[in-house]
Amino acid sequence: MDSTKSSGETAINITESKSSEGKAPATHTATTKATPYQQGGWKRGISIFDFILRICAIVAALVATTTMGTTDETLPFFTQFFQFQASYDDLPTFMFFVVANAIASGYLVLSLPFSIVCIVRPHAAGAKLLLLIFDTVLVAFTTAAAASAAAIVYLAHNGNANTNWFAICQQFTDFCQRVSSAVVASFIAAVIFIFLVMLSAIALRRH
Amino acid sequence: MDSTKSSGETAINITESKSSEGKAPATHTATTKATPYQQGGWKRGISIFDFILRICAIVAALVATTTMGTTDETLPFFTQFFQFQASYDDLPTFMFFVVANAIASGYLVLSLPFSIVCIVRPHAAGAKLLLLIFDTVLVAFTTAAAASAAAIVYLAHNGNANTNWFAICQQFTDFCQRVSSAVVASFIAAVIFIFLVMLSAIALRRH
Repeated sequence: MDSTKSSGETAINITESKSSEGKAPATHTATTKATPYQQGGWKRGISIFDFILRICAIVAALVATTTMGTTDETLPFFTQFFQFQASYDDLPTFMFFVVANAIASGYLVLSLPFSIVCIVRPHAAGAKLLLLIFDTVLVAFTTAAAASAAAIVYLAHNGNANTNWFAICQQFTDFCQRVSSAVVASFIAAVIFIFLVMLSAIALRRH
Repeated sequence: MDSTKSSGETAINITESKSSEGKAPATHTATTKATPYQQGGWKRGISIFDFILRICAIVAALVATTTMGTTDETLPFFTQFFQFQASYDDLPTFMFFVVANAIASGYLVLSLPFSIVCIVRPHAAGAKLLLLIFDTVLVAFTTAAAASAAAIVYLAHNGNANTNWFAICQQFTDFCQRVSSAVVASFIAAVIFIFLVMLSAIALRRH
């Protein structure tokens, strides 16, 4: 733990720094007493906010996974051109979406103990760095899932005349609505991941 | 600049710290001489690597933008069902791809001066934090562009029987090849952005 060697630490270290530096004791003791408390509290506040954001991200990722994963609509009629049933596993992009959001949910649950470590020890830079690196990868992962699904959902809603891809949402209204909600939930999870990376970076910055 | 107050600084600060701390001069001078050089050099190495990666990312983002932006194929024949011409602006996802990659290229060019500041002043935490925050947003941005275009390219290559979307790459072979190259270039840019965030985080971590 390199944090024990730094100047901004707990009250135990103040006595040591006081004994090593002899000159101007009155002003010096006042500043060394004020700084670690303020810094520790500030960093702990960020860590607690990080923990709350992680729980929000778990909810968003789980909602995205389950909404998409349970989407399955059977039409009460059939025509010559359109099929009877629409399910998420008809499209490979939606299957990737479900897998990616399930992985994101699993990672977030596993990251909670590390987040608690950051609350208990506000100066543990190693845990913060580890979370930041994995959070960055998950930003890309959840954004990729949400964006690719959004491209397909847009196509399902609007179709494309140039490529002769027809809109299917006139038939599968319930399917499209559920899928769109799942995409929105996944984008919320991605935005929370971006905020988690920023929070970790601000907490890592030294003073 | 709070970096000038830190212990790990340039050779000018060594004389000051030597004059303020009087006891055990032989061992103390050796350690204070070794630490700032090692830390500064290590952080400067990361900053130089950051600069090189940024230039690689500019190349990748520009290749993605220009390849997609100039994609336009006119077929030498026409049938009853397929049109004569395929261009990137036939699909809204590809237009978003071009705009997003152009913005990423512009941001990367603007970020180069900040990267140079980090090379010249290895302990300037403010510039690193700024770059990290914007790089994180750009990770999401380029990944979204690449992933949504990839979903459409996959559909163009393979089609989807369940939704009656036909593959168009049998007709527009050159179009599909160029678009796929652009998507790959954009994914490379996104991966470089992830590495840039990780490098900034490692450089921000205090010692």
